[in-house]
Amino acid sequence: MVVRAAVAGASGYAGGELLRLLLSHPEVEIGALTGHSNAGQKLGALQPHLRPLADRVLLPTTADALAGHDVVFLALPHGQSAAVAEQLGDEVLVVDMGADFRLKNAADWEKFYGSPHAGTWPYGLPELPGARAALAGTKRIAVPGCYPTAVSLALFPAYGAGLAEPEAVVVAASGTSGAGKAAKPHLLGSEVMGNMSPYGVGGVHRHTPEMIQNLGAAAGEPVTVSFTPTLAPMPRGILATCSAKAKPGVSAESLRAVYEKAFTDEPFVDLLPEGQWPATAAVYGSNAVQIQVALDEAAGRIIVISAIDNLAKGTASGALQSMNIALGLPEDTGLSTIGVAP
Amino acid sequence: MVVRAAVAGASGYAGGELLRLLLSHPEVEIGALTGHSNAGQKLGALQPHLRPLADRVLLPTTADALAGHDVVFLALPHGQSAAVAEQLGDEVLVVDMGADFRLKNAADWEKFYGSPHAGTWPYGLPELPGARAALAGTKRIAVPGCYPTAVSLALFPAYGAGLAEPEAVVVAASGTSGAGKAAKPHLLGSEVMGNMSPYGVGGVHRHTPEMIQNLGAAAGEPVTVSFTPTLAPMPRGILATCSAKAKPGVSAESLRAVYEKAFTDEPFVDLLPEGQWPATAAVYGSNAVQIQVALDEAAGRIIVISAIDNLAKGTASGALQSMNIALGLPEDTGLSTIGVAP
Amino acid sequence: MVVRAAVAGASGYAGGELLRLLLSHPEVEIGALTGHSNAGQKLGALQPHLRPLADRVLLPTTADALAGHDVVFLALPHGQSAAVAEQLGDEVLVVDMGADFRLKNAADWEKFYGSPHAGTWPYGLPELPGARAALAGTKRIAVPGCYPTAVSLALFPAYGAGLAEPEAVVVAASGTSGAGKAAKPHLLGSEVMGNMSPYGVGGVHRHTPEMIQNLGAAAGEPVTVSFTPTLAPMPRGILATCSAKAKPGVSAESLRAVYEKAFTDEPFVDLLPEGQWPATAAVYGSNAVQIQVALDEAAGRIIVISAIDNLAKGTASGALQSMNIALGLPEDTGLSTIGVAP
Amino acid sequence: MVVRAAVAGASGYAGGELLRLLLSHPEVEIGALTGHSNAGQKLGALQPHLRPLADRVLLPTTADALAGHDVVFLALPHGQSAAVAEQLGDEVLVVDMGADFRLKNAADWEKFYGSPHAGTWPYGLPELPGARAALAGTKRIAVPGCYPTAVSLALFPAYGAGLAEPEAVVVAASGTSGAGKAAKPHLLGSEVMGNMSPYGVGGVHRHTPEMIQNLGAAAGEPVTVSFTPTLAPMPRGILATCSAKAKPGVSAESLRAVYEKAFTDEPFVDLLPEGQWPATAAVYGSNAVQIQVALDEAAGRIIVISAIDNLAKGTASGALQSMNIALGLPEDTGLSTIGVAP
Repeated sequence: MVVRAAVAGASGYAGGELLRLLLSHPEVEIGALTGHSNAGQKLGALQPHLRPLADRVLLPTTADALAGHDVVFLALPHGQSAAVAEQLGDEVLVVDMGADFRLKNAADWEKFYGSPHAGTWPYGLPELPGARAALAGTKRIAVPGCYPTAVSLALFPAYGAGLAEPEAVVVAASGTSGAGKAAKPHLLGSEVMGNMSPYGVGGVHRHTPEMIQNLGAAAGEPVTVSFTPTLAPMPRGILATCSAKAKPGVSAESLRAVYEKAFTDEPFVDLLPEGQWPATAAVYGSNAVQIQVALDEAAGRIIVISAIDNLAKGTASGALQSMNIALGLPEDTGLSTIGVAP
Repeated sequence: MVVRAAVAGASGYAGGELLRLLLSHPEVEIGALTGHSNAGQKLGALQPHLRPLADRVLLPTTADALAGHDVVFLALPHGQSAAVAEQLGDEVLVVDMGADFRLKNAADWEKFYGSPHAGTWPYGLPELPGARAALAGTKRIAVPGCYPTAVSLALFPAYGAGLAEPEAVVVAASGTSGAGKAAKPHLLGSEVMGNMSPYGVGGVHRHTPEMIQNLGAAAGEPVTVSFTPTLAPMPRGILATCSAKAKPGVSAESLRAVYEKAFTDEPFVDLLPEGQWPATAAVYGSNAVQIQVALDEAAGRIIVISAIDNLAKGTASGALQSMNIALGLPEDTGLSTIGVAP
Repeated sequence: MVVRAAVAGASGYAGGELLRLLLSHPEVEIGALTGHSNAGQKLGALQPHLRPLADRVLLPTTADALAGHDVVFLALPHGQSAAVAEQLGDEVLVVDMGADFRLKNAADWEKFYGSPHAGTWPYGLPELPGARAALAGTKRIAVPGCYPTAVSLALFPAYGAGLAEPEAVVVAASGTSGAGKAAKPHLLGSEVMGNMSPYGVGGVHRHTPEMIQNLGAAAGEPVTVSFTPTLAPMPRGILATCSAKAKPGVSAESLRAVYEKAFTDEPFVDLLPEGQWPATAAVYGSNAVQIQVALDEAAGRIIVISAIDNLAKGTASGALQSMNIALGLPEDTGLSTIGVAP
Repeated sequence: MVVRAAVAGASGYAGGELLRLLLSHPEVEIGALTGHSNAGQKLGALQPHLRPLADRVLLPTTADALAGHDVVFLALPHGQSAAVAEQLGDEVLVVDMGADFRLKNAADWEKFYGSPHAGTWPYGLPELPGARAALAGTKRIAVPGCYPTAVSLALFPAYGAGLAEPEAVVVAASGTSGAGKAAKPHLLGSEVMGNMSPYGVGGVHRHTPEMIQNLGAAAGEPVTVSFTPTLAPMPRGILATCSAKAKPGVSAESLRAVYEKAFTDEPFVDLLPEGQWPATAAVYGSNAVQIQVALDEAAGRIIVISAIDNLAKGTASGALQSMNIALGLPEDTGLSTIGVAP
């Protein structure tokens, strides 16, 4: 199979990571690359690590430029994907790496994003119950947010097995690439090195309703999520510390058994041996998810910690994993569980 | 007043930070400096940033070396302070920067530290209710742990005012200096740069009972604390994200009012203006504590975030603040609320 | 003495560091603070580490705002200082932290900065021969560039003593604050963390003629400087590796003797003991300069390495040192040789 | 072809990076893994990023353990490779990632390493003139040092074309992984973050004679190298700033032409477009070398800057490139020029 892929938004971090992975995907041929303010520039100046594509010139993001491909990846600012997708035709696989089609609840979308809801596409987190079936053969994929990827994978087994009270507390640290490549003063190296700081505190971060959607589906009842994201002095990686009160009778053994069962056949989820804890450095550049669980008996809480690479499993390699399923390719084609460390 | 001060454990990070501050304390004269494996070496090779002390030679940590001072600071591994303190005489102010005399409950000490309980000294966190009275004129000070400093200051007002349910959830990120200067593989620069990882998960970190002690005292009832510490890729700083379910009727306004009242006269606590969030970089090298509060109405939780410098307010400058009180000096003598940034 | 000081450009990194130091300068009272695009904002939002000034509002940078002070510090983009200085009156001490008045040679200015030469003011690097005399009582000070500070201090003794051939080679690494606070994509944390990269290679960096001016004056003959600056993944600090061919007969002993003599009475220059090498972390936040020398006998080269804090000795505390001299204050008033480490 | 490969020293950084690459080398099957102090442990605890090998147990480094493989990689402390290699038999390809067989001159070896010279093996830097011929079919490969890789590739074209005077000046910054995984105090994260510092100054670094050997061979005359290595606050990467006086008549055009010719057919060397400069982040994890040249006309010097990943092209992927040649495989098998960024 030769899959011809276009990437809209090739100059950003998500687009760059996607191209890095597409370059070693055995079934994909890289087609048109588009940008907005960078249209007309060579990719070599924008993504100097992608040497084989250095002489590629970015086209403007138009339906014409994206036409004639088997797959089109959209790495666009939120709210822009629907207009592009409409012009692409039903036979093209469209993979939206933005937020536009993730939420099922239109009111949530409008509250958190402030624009009309464009719709809902099959959700590209294959490890969630039922997700693979919805992705198989689909022509539309909504790639999850990076934080919801880390948090949903950490907590859905506990909720699915009825172990946890429906009030989750999540504190996550993200590398700065999660904030994108637009130059903003608080993202300067001088500001972020040596610094930890929170943002979007108090339930206002846009990834909150997506976590609530996923965990509520697993629990079969409404779940609240108190989510605090923090910016960490590193380029990549998310470490999510997730907890919830344990329901009566939960033991450390029963908790671990549930997680072992949930992930035993998952090629990209690494439930670590007891005593070993996730580290973002171990999944740098890979599609792996590291997870560990604990029961804090004194506090009566289940604690699950996950580590992902926000640009890889959290965005670009996660998108490829879902693309593979949609196209009927082996799910791990072109993907790796090996991190680049130290 | 000339206060002659000795420092036991002058080659470590806590001892070094203490000396940095003592060098600009107007009432202190630096006396004997001692070390263990580094005894006999010049301080200039061990603490190259402390240029005025470069030619000082470290003595072995003995009662003889520490005799004849007005104040003796102990920056020793836990379990070693009691033996030294006993030999120092009741007229000497002994400031223990280790854990030995922090806990009131002997069973907690034995469970978390595995040795006999040495006793309890006045607790050197002046901002806690009643603390200043206990510190005034004392000859023995137990300097709090770095995490308990950040967490107790964040949550005691909420508990003191009866706003929060007695089940706190804390996730904190610490710079690597909190782990000390002993060379361990997981603390190598190659390992920690670009990496976030948790440790001591599930209620086993030794600072947990100290938080429980402080918050329980504020609440007037037992409080559980689910505490997850994480190691962040920066040398200094603690960012503590602390939350608890709000009791019925708590509003964002009543929450903020309680914090404004709690800290209005505190010289070192900076309740930030609404909309501004703590950042460890802003308190780098200073005795300041940055705090911000939020009410997550959807999740029903109070969220309080604090930032301190783990070596400064979290250890060495916190120790000096308490020393000032004990000696009857103005509390802010030799201390600063100005951070070194960027 | 109460010196009333205004700061034009208070929202940038140089202005912020200056304010940090002015806050603990015993003879200075901080007057007007001005900004350009940030005029009207509170300083607390822009410089959150400067807590005592948090409620100060930035004025627009006008002669009116700056009038009525004893000292005016200009931390403005190059080319803007002359117009402001002209309006300030001869009785006011004007300290230009920009480049405008550093170069003696108008052609050099025009070649490297592309605008008419505004003139030459006494050069604020007190350790250079003759500099203190020129600074005493002056009403105009040109603060040196950060790289020229590190490089000139490293090499002027060798050139002054006739030990080195007049062809210097300098490679220096700078922290990112040297590039300022304007948000540019290549200065994002995501770009600079984990990254070393050069810029301004081949003699085109604007600090090159300033080094040539200083070293030529020391040598008494023209000196060329091949200067390569690199951007290092840290907020602050300059490490300058400087070398030149040794003239015949130079020995390691004669080299060291020259440096010991040059710096023996200098309060802020720390010629390290043999075997110890400069480190930027050791001078973080301080006015100290660490220097070490070596003779590479096989290559026939003198190697001198210096470390400074680019914002402190390289800009703001260096400016204060010169201000102290100009005002007749003890040179070290309000300055420190103690770094904040680790 | 199935090449069975053993790795001695699998728990260190070089061994880990080699295993990361071997896992995706299509012709290699990973055989025995050995360690010294870590023998008996599972690799998952030591190299948590290498998930597919997590359950492999390290054997002691003995001839027995290493027997029966087609290729044996030695990632051992210097001085230990000869004894192991002798026992491996002439039919086994032995790739020494240590220093033992790099130098031709026994006196140099003894001076810099202090032990008897073990011999000289074909030198694994294929881009050097004549190197590929010596590597084809060989059963013994000496992998170059990381700094000599960066420096030799930067300067051999200038020396080979007679453009440069035989006195090179090199200042290079390395990530901390170059210093290995042994826990030493000065390599702690707390020490290296925010810090640039030199070491091995004055011609004493062990990689100096290797550079001299390579550049002298290119020049056809003795070349001196004044080499100053510095430790940079990043896990990986080398940025080498290399310069030498230009011989009379050298122009920017003739200089660039020589470099274009030298590297036009090299699959792993990326002579950047004019105006773009190397950055270590762009080659993170890849076998690529970024190079840029400049002529500083005022100083009369040729400046060549190269960036590599010290663990990849500088050690492990460089070793695989040479292995491919020795085995008759396409040179780029299992290797990549794509970096992981940001």
